[in-house]
Amino acid sequence: MSEYSIDKRNKVRRVPTRGHYDQETVYKILDDAFVCHVSFVLDGQPFIIPTLYGREGNKLYLHGATSSRMIRHLEKGVPMSLAVTHVDGIVLARSAFHHSANYRSTIVYGTAKSVSQELKEHALFIISEQVLKGRWDEVRLPNEKELKATEVLELEIEQASAKVRSGGPNDDKPDYDLDIWAGVVPMKMIYSDPIADEVLPSDIKLPPSLK
Amino acid sequence: MSEYSIDKRNKVRRVPTRGHYDQETVYKILDDAFVCHVSFVLDGQPFIIPTLYGREGNKLYLHGATSSRMIRHLEKGVPMSLAVTHVDGIVLARSAFHHSANYRSTIVYGTAKSVSQELKEHALFIISEQVLKGRWDEVRLPNEKELKATEVLELEIEQASAKVRSGGPNDDKPDYDLDIWAGVVPMKMIYSDPIADEVLPSDIKLPPSLK
Repeated sequence: MSEYSIDKRNKVRRVPTRGHYDQETVYKILDDAFVCHVSFVLDGQPFIIPTLYGREGNKLYLHGATSSRMIRHLEKGVPMSLAVTHVDGIVLARSAFHHSANYRSTIVYGTAKSVSQELKEHALFIISEQVLKGRWDEVRLPNEKELKATEVLELEIEQASAKVRSGGPNDDKPDYDLDIWAGVVPMKMIYSDPIADEVLPSDIKLPPSLK
Repeated sequence: MSEYSIDKRNKVRRVPTRGHYDQETVYKILDDAFVCHVSFVLDGQPFIIPTLYGREGNKLYLHGATSSRMIRHLEKGVPMSLAVTHVDGIVLARSAFHHSANYRSTIVYGTAKSVSQELKEHALFIISEQVLKGRWDEVRLPNEKELKATEVLELEIEQASAKVRSGGPNDDKPDYDLDIWAGVVPMKMIYSDPIADEVLPSDIKLPPSLK
Protein backbone atom coordinates (compact mmCIF):
# COMPACT_ATOMS: atom_id res chain seq x y z
CA MET A 1 0.00 0.00 0.00
CA SER A 2 1.13 3.53 -0.59
CA GLU A 3 1.42 6.84 1.20
CA TYR A 4 -0.82 9.85 0.79
CA SER A 5 0.82 12.99 -0.54
CA ILE A 6 1.67 15.51 2.17
CA ASP A 7 1.06 19.22 1.95
CA LYS A 8 -0.07 21.94 4.28
CA ARG A 9 -3.62 20.58 4.33
CA ASN A 10 -2.84 17.23 5.91
CA LYS A 11 0.60 17.71 7.44
CA VAL A 12 0.70 16.87 11.16
CA ARG A 13 2.31 19.90 12.75
CA ARG A 14 1.98 19.34 16.47
CA VAL A 15 4.26 16.48 17.58
CA PRO A 16 5.02 15.46 13.97
CA THR A 17 6.60 12.20 15.16
CA ARG A 18 3.05 11.01 15.88
CA GLY A 19 2.02 11.60 12.27
CA HIS A 20 1.50 8.85 9.70
CA TYR A 21 0.53 9.06 6.05
CA ASP A 22 0.51 5.44 4.94
CA GLN A 23 -2.73 3.79 3.86
CA GLU A 24 -2.16 0.84 6.15
CA THR A 25 -2.28 2.99 9.30
CA VAL A 26 -5.16 5.11 8.03
CA TYR A 27 -7.22 2.08 6.96
CA LYS A 28 -6.66 0.30 10.25
CA ILE A 29 -8.02 3.28 12.19
CA LEU A 30 -10.98 3.58 9.83
CA ASP A 31 -11.72 -0.14 10.06
CA ASP A 32 -11.87 -0.11 13.85
CA ALA A 33 -14.94 2.13 13.95
CA PHE A 34 -18.18 2.79 12.12
CA VAL A 35 -19.05 6.32 13.26
CA CYS A 36 -17.12 9.28 11.89
CA HIS A 37 -17.52 13.04 12.07
CA VAL A 38 -17.89 14.89 8.79
CA SER A 39 -17.04 18.55 8.37
CA PHE A 40 -18.22 20.85 5.60
CA VAL A 41 -18.87 24.54 4.98
CA LEU A 42 -22.21 26.15 4.17
CA ASP A 43 -22.33 29.93 3.70
CA GLY A 44 -19.05 30.31 5.57
CA GLN A 45 -20.28 28.34 8.58
CA PRO A 46 -18.41 25.11 9.38
CA PHE A 47 -20.76 22.23 10.17
CA ILE A 48 -19.88 18.97 11.83
CA ILE A 49 -22.07 15.90 11.84
CA PRO A 50 -21.57 12.38 13.19
CA THR A 51 -22.54 9.68 10.73
CA LEU A 52 -22.01 6.03 9.83
CA TYR A 53 -19.56 5.03 7.12
CA GLY A 54 -18.06 2.02 5.42
CA ARG A 55 -14.66 1.65 3.77
CA GLU A 56 -13.93 -0.20 0.57
CA GLY A 57 -10.40 0.16 -0.71
CA ASN A 58 -9.56 3.82 -0.84
CA LYS A 59 -13.22 4.84 -0.80
CA LEU A 60 -15.58 5.67 2.02
CA TYR A 61 -19.34 5.37 1.65
CA LEU A 62 -21.71 7.63 3.58
CA HIS A 63 -25.47 7.44 3.47
CA GLY A 64 -28.45 9.47 4.49
CA ALA A 65 -31.94 10.43 3.57
CA THR A 66 -32.19 12.05 0.16
CA SER A 67 -33.59 15.11 1.96
CA SER A 68 -30.59 15.42 4.32
CA ARG A 69 -28.81 18.78 4.24
CA MET A 70 -25.44 17.13 4.64
CA ILE A 71 -26.03 14.67 1.81
CA ARG A 72 -27.47 17.27 -0.55
CA HIS A 73 -24.55 19.58 0.07
CA LEU A 74 -21.74 17.02 -0.04
CA GLU A 75 -22.93 15.42 -3.28
CA LYS A 76 -22.08 18.68 -5.04
CA GLY A 77 -18.44 17.74 -4.62
CA VAL A 78 -17.58 20.51 -2.16
CA PRO A 79 -14.44 20.27 0.00
CA MET A 80 -14.99 18.13 3.05
CA SER A 81 -13.03 16.45 5.78
CA LEU A 82 -13.85 13.46 7.90
CA ALA A 83 -12.37 12.27 11.18
CA VAL A 84 -12.32 9.01 13.11
CA THR A 85 -10.87 9.00 16.59
CA HIS A 86 -10.28 6.18 19.06
CA VAL A 87 -9.47 7.20 22.61
CA ASP A 88 -7.30 4.45 24.07
CA GLY A 89 -6.46 5.88 27.46
CA ILE A 90 -5.67 8.74 29.77
CA VAL A 91 -1.96 9.42 30.25
CA LEU A 92 -1.23 10.63 33.77
CA ALA A 93 2.08 12.40 34.08
CA ARG A 94 3.77 13.86 37.14
CA SER A 95 3.24 17.37 35.81
CA ALA A 96 -0.11 18.79 34.71
CA PHE A 97 1.59 19.95 31.52
CA HIS A 98 2.56 16.48 30.33
CA HIS A 99 -0.83 14.91 30.83
CA SER A 100 -2.08 13.50 27.58
CA ALA A 101 -4.33 10.92 25.98
CA ASN A 102 -3.50 7.80 24.05
CA TYR A 103 -5.39 7.80 20.82
CA ARG A 104 -5.49 6.77 17.17
CA SER A 105 -7.09 9.29 14.89
CA THR A 106 -7.27 9.88 11.20
CA ILE A 107 -8.43 12.83 9.17
CA VAL A 108 -9.47 12.28 5.60
CA TYR A 109 -9.82 14.86 2.81
CA GLY A 110 -11.62 14.57 -0.47
CA THR A 111 -14.84 15.36 -2.27
CA ALA A 112 -17.91 13.19 -2.43
CA LYS A 113 -20.28 12.25 -5.19
CA SER A 114 -23.47 10.21 -5.36
CA VAL A 115 -23.01 6.58 -6.23
CA SER A 116 -24.81 5.27 -9.28
CA GLN A 117 -28.13 3.44 -8.83
CA GLU A 118 -26.36 0.18 -9.69
CA LEU A 119 -23.80 0.69 -6.96
CA LYS A 120 -26.16 1.90 -4.26
CA GLU A 121 -27.11 -1.44 -2.79
CA HIS A 122 -23.50 -2.60 -2.80
CA ALA A 123 -22.42 0.58 -1.01
CA LEU A 124 -25.10 0.08 1.63
CA PHE A 125 -23.81 -3.46 2.05
CA ILE A 126 -20.32 -2.08 2.71
CA ILE A 127 -21.66 0.31 5.36
CA SER A 128 -23.62 -2.53 6.95
CA GLU A 129 -20.53 -4.74 6.99
CA GLN A 130 -18.56 -1.97 8.69
CA VAL A 131 -21.12 -1.86 11.50
CA LEU A 132 -21.67 -5.59 11.87
CA LYS A 133 -20.08 -8.13 9.59
CA GLY A 134 -22.50 -10.70 8.23
CA ARG A 135 -25.66 -8.87 9.24
CA TRP A 136 -26.60 -8.00 5.65
CA ASP A 137 -27.18 -11.66 4.84
CA GLU A 138 -29.63 -12.06 7.72
CA VAL A 139 -32.10 -9.26 7.06
CA ARG A 140 -34.84 -8.16 4.73
CA LEU A 141 -32.96 -6.25 2.04
CA PRO A 142 -33.93 -2.76 0.87
CA ASN A 143 -36.86 -2.52 -1.52
CA GLU A 144 -37.24 -0.01 -4.37
CA LYS A 145 -38.91 2.59 -2.18
CA GLU A 146 -36.26 2.36 0.53
CA LEU A 147 -33.45 2.58 -1.99
CA LYS A 148 -35.07 5.67 -3.47
CA ALA A 149 -35.32 7.32 -0.06
CA THR A 150 -31.63 6.73 0.60
CA GLU A 151 -28.74 8.59 -0.94
CA VAL A 152 -25.28 7.09 -0.81
CA LEU A 153 -22.12 9.09 -1.34
CA GLU A 154 -18.68 7.83 -2.18
CA LEU A 155 -15.66 9.70 -1.00
CA GLU A 156 -12.42 8.79 -2.68
CA ILE A 157 -9.72 9.51 -0.12
CA GLU A 158 -7.50 12.15 -1.76
CA GLN A 159 -5.34 12.82 1.23
CA ALA A 160 -5.28 11.66 4.81
CA SER A 161 -3.17 11.79 7.90
CA ALA A 162 -3.16 9.67 11.00
CA LYS A 163 -1.96 10.61 14.43
CA VAL A 164 -1.20 8.02 17.05
CA ARG A 165 -0.05 8.24 20.64
CA SER A 166 0.55 5.21 22.79
CA GLY A 167 2.56 4.31 25.86
CA GLY A 168 3.22 5.96 29.19
CA PRO A 169 3.85 9.54 30.24
CA ASN A 170 6.92 11.53 29.20
CA ASP A 171 7.81 13.81 32.07
CA ASP A 172 10.51 16.41 32.44
CA LYS A 173 13.60 14.89 34.00
CA PRO A 174 13.44 16.57 37.43
CA ASP A 175 9.80 15.55 37.84
CA TYR A 176 10.70 11.86 37.96
CA ASP A 177 11.89 12.42 41.52
CA LEU A 178 8.46 13.62 42.62
CA ASP A 179 6.31 11.44 44.80
CA ILE A 180 3.46 11.45 42.26
CA TRP A 181 1.73 8.46 40.70
CA ALA A 182 2.14 8.31 36.94
CA GLY A 183 0.91 5.88 34.33
CA VAL A 184 -1.96 5.16 32.01
CA VAL A 185 -5.64 4.41 32.46
CA PRO A 186 -6.57 2.30 29.43
CA MET A 187 -9.94 2.91 27.82
CA LYS A 188 -11.82 0.85 25.31
CA MET A 189 -15.19 0.44 23.71
CA ILE A 190 -16.92 -2.80 24.59
CA TYR A 191 -19.99 -4.56 23.30
CA SER A 192 -22.35 -6.02 25.88
CA ASP A 193 -24.65 -8.99 25.44
CA PRO A 194 -27.31 -8.40 22.78
CA ILE A 195 -30.77 -7.48 24.07
CA ALA A 196 -33.62 -8.93 22.04
CA ASP A 197 -36.48 -6.73 20.91
CA GLU A 198 -39.32 -7.02 23.46
CA VAL A 199 -41.70 -8.41 20.88
CA LEU A 200 -39.25 -10.91 19.38
CA PRO A 201 -40.61 -14.47 19.51
CA SER A 202 -38.49 -16.45 21.95
CA ASP A 203 -37.74 -19.18 19.40
CA ILE A 204 -35.72 -16.79 17.24
CA LYS A 205 -32.15 -17.36 18.31
CA LEU A 206 -29.10 -15.10 18.08
CA PRO A 207 -27.89 -14.90 14.48
CA PRO A 208 -24.36 -15.84 13.33
CA SER A 209 -23.37 -12.16 13.01
CA LEU A 210 -23.66 -11.81 16.78
CA LYS A 211 -21.71 -14.91 17.71
CA MET B 1 -31.66 25.98 32.75
CA SER B 2 -32.79 27.39 29.46
CA GLU B 3 -33.09 26.42 25.82
CA TYR B 4 -30.83 27.49 23.00
CA SER B 5 -32.44 29.51 20.23
CA ILE B 6 -33.29 27.47 17.16
CA ASP B 7 -32.68 28.54 13.60
CA LYS B 8 -31.53 26.89 10.41
CA ARG B 9 -27.99 26.52 11.75
CA ASN B 10 -28.79 24.20 14.65
CA LYS B 11 -32.23 22.83 13.80
CA VAL B 12 -32.35 19.03 13.77
CA ARG B 13 -33.96 18.18 10.44
CA ARG B 14 -33.64 14.44 10.14
CA VAL B 15 -35.92 12.70 12.66
CA PRO B 16 -36.69 15.97 14.48
CA THR B 17 -38.28 14.08 17.38
CA ARG B 18 -34.73 13.10 18.37
CA GLY B 19 -33.69 16.74 18.64
CA HIS B 20 -33.17 18.60 21.91
CA TYR B 21 -32.18 22.18 22.54
CA ASP B 22 -32.17 22.45 26.32
CA GLN B 23 -28.96 23.11 28.17
CA GLU B 24 -29.54 20.19 30.53
CA THR B 25 -29.43 17.63 27.71
CA VAL B 26 -26.53 19.34 25.94
CA TYR B 27 -24.47 19.67 29.13
CA LYS B 28 -25.04 16.06 30.11
CA ILE B 29 -23.69 14.86 26.76
CA LEU B 30 -20.72 17.20 27.02
CA ASP B 31 -19.99 16.12 30.60
CA ASP B 32 -19.85 12.44 29.70
CA ALA B 33 -16.77 12.85 27.50
CA PHE B 34 -13.53 14.77 27.29
CA VAL B 35 -12.65 14.48 23.60
CA CYS B 36 -14.57 16.48 21.04
CA HIS B 37 -14.16 17.20 17.34
CA VAL B 38 -13.76 20.82 16.30
CA SER B 39 -14.61 22.06 12.83
CA PHE B 40 -13.40 25.30 11.24
CA VAL B 41 -12.73 26.75 7.80
CA LEU B 42 -9.39 27.89 6.43
CA ASP B 43 -9.26 29.22 2.86
CA GLY B 44 -12.53 27.51 2.05
CA GLN B 45 -11.32 24.11 3.26
CA PRO B 46 -13.19 22.59 6.22
CA PHE B 47 -10.87 21.16 8.85
CA ILE B 48 -11.77 18.79 11.63
CA ILE B 49 -9.60 18.06 14.63
CA PRO B 50 -10.11 15.93 17.73
CA THR B 51 -9.14 17.70 20.93
CA LEU B 52 -9.68 17.74 24.69
CA TYR B 53 -12.12 20.15 26.29
CA GLY B 54 -13.63 21.11 29.59
CA ARG B 55 -17.02 22.65 30.32
CA GLU B 56 -17.74 25.34 32.87
CA GLY B 57 -21.28 26.67 32.82
CA ASN B 58 -22.11 27.65 29.26
CA LYS B 59 -18.43 27.83 28.28
CA LEU B 60 -16.09 25.26 26.83
CA TYR B 61 -12.33 25.54 27.20
CA LEU B 62 -9.95 24.18 24.58
CA HIS B 63 -6.19 24.24 24.79
CA GLY B 64 -3.22 23.71 22.59
CA ALA B 65 0.29 24.82 21.87
CA THR B 66 0.55 28.51 21.10
CA SER B 67 1.95 27.47 17.72
CA SER B 68 -1.05 25.24 16.86
CA ARG B 69 -2.79 26.10 13.60
CA MET B 70 -6.18 25.34 15.10
CA ILE B 71 -5.60 27.53 18.14
CA ARG B 72 -4.15 30.43 16.16
CA HIS B 73 -7.05 30.35 13.77
CA LEU B 74 -9.88 29.88 16.27
CA GLU B 75 -8.68 32.64 18.58
CA LYS B 76 -9.50 35.13 15.82
CA GLY B 77 -13.16 34.51 16.63
CA VAL B 78 -14.01 32.77 13.37
CA PRO B 79 -17.17 30.62 13.08
CA MET B 80 -16.63 27.15 14.46
CA SER B 81 -18.61 24.13 15.47
CA LEU B 82 -17.82 21.35 17.88
CA ALA B 83 -19.30 17.89 18.28
CA VAL B 84 -19.37 15.27 21.01
CA THR B 85 -20.85 11.88 20.20
CA HIS B 86 -21.44 8.84 22.37
CA VAL B 87 -22.25 5.62 20.55
CA ASP B 88 -24.44 3.57 22.88
CA GLY B 89 -25.28 0.62 20.71
CA ILE B 90 -26.08 -0.97 17.38
CA VAL B 91 -29.77 -1.28 16.61
CA LEU B 92 -30.51 -4.41 14.62
CA ALA B 93 -33.82 -4.30 12.82
CA ARG B 94 -35.51 -6.94 10.70
CA SER B 95 -34.95 -4.85 7.58
CA ALA B 96 -31.60 -3.45 6.45
CA PHE B 97 -33.29 -0.08 6.05
CA HIS B 98 -34.27 0.28 9.70
CA HIS B 99 -30.88 -0.57 11.15
CA SER B 100 -29.63 2.26 13.26
CA ALA B 101 -27.39 3.21 16.14
CA ASN B 102 -28.23 4.36 19.62
CA TYR B 103 -26.33 7.51 20.38
CA ARG B 104 -26.22 10.80 22.22
CA SER B 105 -24.61 13.62 20.30
CA THR B 106 -24.41 17.35 20.58
CA ILE B 107 -23.24 19.99 18.18
CA VAL B 108 -22.19 23.35 19.55
CA TYR B 109 -21.82 26.65 17.69
CA GLY B 110 -19.99 29.77 18.73
CA THR B 111 -16.78 31.68 18.38
CA ALA B 112 -13.70 31.33 20.54
CA LYS B 113 -11.33 33.79 22.12
CA SER B 114 -8.16 33.47 24.14
CA VAL B 115 -8.65 33.48 27.88
CA SER B 116 -6.84 36.14 29.86
CA GLN B 117 -3.54 35.28 31.53
CA GLU B 118 -5.30 35.36 34.90
CA LEU B 119 -7.88 32.82 33.77
CA LYS B 120 -5.50 30.47 31.98
CA GLU B 121 -4.57 28.25 34.88
CA HIS B 122 -8.17 28.02 36.00
CA ALA B 123 -9.27 27.03 32.49
CA LEU B 124 -6.59 24.32 32.37
CA PHE B 125 -7.88 23.10 35.73
CA ILE B 126 -11.38 22.80 34.21
CA ILE B 127 -10.03 20.77 31.27
CA SER B 128 -8.09 18.56 33.68
CA GLU B 129 -11.19 18.01 35.82
CA GLN B 130 -13.15 17.00 32.73
CA VAL B 131 -10.60 14.28 31.98
CA LEU B 132 -10.06 13.06 35.54
CA LYS B 133 -11.66 14.70 38.53
CA GLY B 134 -9.24 15.43 41.34
CA ARG B 135 -6.07 14.85 39.32
CA TRP B 136 -5.12 18.54 39.29
CA ASP B 137 -4.56 18.49 43.07
CA GLU B 138 -2.11 15.59 42.80
CA VAL B 139 0.35 16.87 40.23
CA ARG B 140 3.12 19.38 39.71
CA LEU B 141 1.23 22.44 38.47
CA PRO B 142 2.23 24.39 35.33
CA ASN B 143 5.17 26.76 35.65
CA GLU B 144 5.59 30.11 33.87
CA LYS B 145 7.23 28.58 30.85
CA GLU B 146 4.59 25.89 30.43
CA LEU B 147 1.76 28.41 30.78
CA LYS B 148 3.42 30.54 28.16
CA ALA B 149 3.66 27.62 25.74
CA THR B 150 -0.03 26.85 26.17
CA GLU B 151 -2.91 28.78 24.73
CA VAL B 152 -6.38 28.31 26.13
CA LEU B 153 -9.53 29.31 24.30
CA GLU B 154 -12.95 29.84 25.70
CA LEU B 155 -15.99 29.14 23.59
CA GLU B 156 -19.22 30.58 24.86
CA ILE B 157 -21.93 28.27 23.56
CA GLU B 158 -24.13 30.47 21.36
CA GLN B 159 -26.30 27.72 20.02
CA ALA B 160 -26.38 23.97 20.32
CA SER B 161 -28.50 21.01 19.48
CA ALA B 162 -28.51 17.50 20.82
CA LYS B 163 -29.74 14.39 19.10
CA VAL B 164 -30.51 11.23 21.02
CA ARG B 165 -31.68 7.81 19.98
CA SER B 166 -32.28 5.01 22.42
CA GLY B 167 -34.29 1.82 22.59
CA GLY B 168 -34.96 -1.02 20.20
CA PRO B 169 -35.60 -1.24 16.47
CA ASN B 170 -38.66 0.24 14.76
CA ASP B 171 -39.54 -2.01 11.89
CA ASP B 172 -42.24 -1.76 9.27
CA LYS B 173 -45.33 -3.64 10.39
CA PRO B 174 -45.18 -6.57 7.95
CA ASP B 175 -41.53 -7.22 8.86
CA TYR B 176 -42.46 -8.19 12.43
CA ASP B 177 -43.64 -11.52 11.06
CA LEU B 178 -40.22 -12.34 9.64
CA ASP B 179 -38.07 -14.95 11.27
CA ILE B 180 -35.21 -12.48 11.85
CA TRP B 181 -33.52 -11.67 15.13
CA ALA B 182 -33.90 -8.03 16.12
CA GLY B 183 -32.67 -6.07 19.10
CA VAL B 184 -29.80 -3.98 20.35
CA VAL B 185 -26.11 -4.60 20.97
CA PRO B 186 -25.19 -2.14 23.73
CA MET B 187 -21.80 -0.44 23.52
CA LYS B 188 -19.94 1.51 26.11
CA MET B 189 -16.56 2.96 26.88
CA ILE B 190 -14.85 1.34 29.83
CA TYR B 191 -11.78 2.19 31.87
CA SER B 192 -9.43 -0.67 32.69
CA ASP B 193 -7.14 -0.94 35.71
CA PRO B 194 -4.47 1.77 35.75
CA ILE B 195 -1.01 0.71 34.56
CA ALA B 196 1.84 2.34 36.46
CA ASP B 197 4.71 3.96 34.57
CA GLU B 198 7.54 1.41 34.26
CA VAL B 199 9.93 3.59 36.23
CA LEU B 200 7.46 4.48 38.99
CA PRO B 201 8.81 3.54 42.42
CA SER B 202 6.66 0.71 43.78
CA ASP B 203 5.94 2.55 47.03
CA ILE B 204 3.94 5.21 45.19
CA LYS B 205 0.35 4.06 45.52
CA LEU B 206 -2.67 4.81 43.36
CA PRO B 207 -3.87 8.36 43.99
CA PRO B 208 -7.40 9.27 45.15
CA SER B 209 -8.38 10.45 41.65
CA LEU B 210 -8.11 6.85 40.44
CA LYS B 211 -10.08 5.24 43.24
